[in-house]
Amino acid sequence: MLALRVEKKRLAVKNVSKPDQPDETLVRVLLSGICNTDLEIARGYAGFNGTIGHEFVGVVEASTDRALVGRRVVGEINAGCGNCDLCRAGDPRHCATRTVLGIHGRDGAHAEFLQLPAVNLLRVPDNIPDEHAVFTEPLAAACGVLERANLNKSDRVAVIGDGKLGLLCAQVIALTGAAVLLIGKHSSKLRIAERRGIEIGNPKLAAKRKQEFDVVVEASGAASGFGLALDLLRPRGQLVLKSTFHGKTELDAARIVVDEISIVGSRCGRFSPALDLLKKAAIDVDSLISEEYPLSNGVHAMRRAGTRGVMKVLLRPSNGK
Amino acid sequence: MLALRVEKKRLAVKNVSKPDQPDETLVRVLLSGICNTDLEIARGYAGFNGTIGHEFVGVVEASTDRALVGRRVVGEINAGCGNCDLCRAGDPRHCATRTVLGIHGRDGAHAEFLQLPAVNLLRVPDNIPDEHAVFTEPLAAACGVLERANLNKSDRVAVIGDGKLGLLCAQVIALTGAAVLLIGKHSSKLRIAERRGIEIGNPKLAAKRKQEFDVVVEASGAASGFGLALDLLRPRGQLVLKSTFHGKTELDAARIVVDEISIVGSRCGRFSPALDLLKKAAIDVDSLISEEYPLSNGVHAMRRAGTRGVMKVLLRPSNGK
Repeated sequence: MLALRVEKKRLAVKNVSKPDQPDETLVRVLLSGICNTDLEIARGYAGFNGTIGHEFVGVVEASTDRALVGRRVVGEINAGCGNCDLCRAGDPRHCATRTVLGIHGRDGAHAEFLQLPAVNLLRVPDNIPDEHAVFTEPLAAACGVLERANLNKSDRVAVIGDGKLGLLCAQVIALTGAAVLLIGKHSSKLRIAERRGIEIGNPKLAAKRKQEFDVVVEASGAASGFGLALDLLRPRGQLVLKSTFHGKTELDAARIVVDEISIVGSRCGRFSPALDLLKKAAIDVDSLISEEYPLSNGVHAMRRAGTRGVMKVLLRPSNGK
Repeated sequence: MLALRVEKKRLAVKNVSKPDQPDETLVRVLLSGICNTDLEIARGYAGFNGTIGHEFVGVVEASTDRALVGRRVVGEINAGCGNCDLCRAGDPRHCATRTVLGIHGRDGAHAEFLQLPAVNLLRVPDNIPDEHAVFTEPLAAACGVLERANLNKSDRVAVIGDGKLGLLCAQVIALTGAAVLLIGKHSSKLRIAERRGIEIGNPKLAAKRKQEFDVVVEASGAASGFGLALDLLRPRGQLVLKSTFHGKTELDAARIVVDEISIVGSRCGRFSPALDLLKKAAIDVDSLISEEYPLSNGVHAMRRAGTRGVMKVLLRPSNGK
């Protein structure tokens, strides 16, 4: 089968054998989405070698769970050991020996087929098209903000970054009733949020609104977003870090102490709230799709995904049609 | 009256006029304590010019609140505007226009007399000697950890830094029933905690206990403490920042996101829980006192307070006897 692989920091579409772990569920990929993390892994982040990709929708080909076979599914990307306290509590996202689809110890989704434990898979409601279902993972990550931040309806929230993640976070938070300002530099991207009734602004203007926000979500991935976030937060406000910055970030730790700021890291979210939102068509994901390529053009698609102004790029394996 | 003052980064004991704001309460200082923040202010931190010092016990000489006159008191150091939402809710610690005793916009405690609003003053129970009462402010700061961190009895807690603040934090947290490890480099200081049944260790050995702790309190003020804290924390653990680091601190923000760490800044605490602990003699503060000098020797005392191995240095105005 074809798979988009990183090997020693070299990216290529290769012909590899189909995954064949009998205790896992085999999924035929219908559509996969390129995430910024994929671009970073291709540059060597996380030291991963193998098939990349962790956003997908597919159909179950074979499973120990008979009820899954033939079903359209999405899959939680963290596969836990199943035995530790965290896994037994039903949340393998921090299992110490977990593998992560296309990121750590497990081949990923930019391929004709992938494997995951049956417990990781969730059926996709029929009314959600493939092009929406493929957003379940990033939307779950955006919903994860609500798991980690203590958010009230009356809160003033700023989201920094008008990329895919920022746009999803802004939409998810706006649905709670909180007042959201999305801060970014790209008017075409900001307009997607504006159409959903979300206030938008550029970083320069936003920076004047010092200490005005109860919660700030940093989703730009730029170190400058960190400083801006601290400026915007009221004393005892909460900063939610969504982006995995690479390398070291400079931080004015004295400000965190003096203003008693809370910072919470937020990575993966649960899939079911995300599927719920997609089922209700409560989130505009269509506007986030820029381009689609056959999996065989994966290397070019990755280049496009890294191009300024391009948002979500989808890959379609030829067996997915 | 005599006062230990910083003017344009120059430290000197000077003869200045007694404070005379009629709407504030006048306190004759019995004893004041030198805090590391005083040393930093003398080096130019916070751009403060005036009388330094914010840890004290004194006797009320004059007040609009008659019941206070002649009483022995300690005083919360943040003086709010009295009108904003925070002040009206009884917590001026983050009032935007607050002054802070000996730190920001208000002469401090290393003087024969000081002034504070009457609402800032708390009577000291008779059984607490002056030498203990003078620790109310730093002990309140240590108790502030419990206000900010979500701490359970069953938590494993590491406190980084065996200075005065670390020793107070370790003792306060140990009283909650949580298992505490105090990490430091000075065996004589660590022994103070060990005598209270607190586990102790040096940073090298502690660093091997990766992801073992639910809560880590950074009270060393050293940037290295930040990295060690992230090593020690389990996924979704809490890091409490107590020290006001100066300048920029380098931070591995990706770790915060991937492990979904929470970081909470903690500055000042409420005084009443601290007075309560001192009344019960539940905290060993005697062992933290290194030296005492007359206020007139304030410059020398500050030098001593900045000497390696020296812990709390107290100043006694001559009128305090």
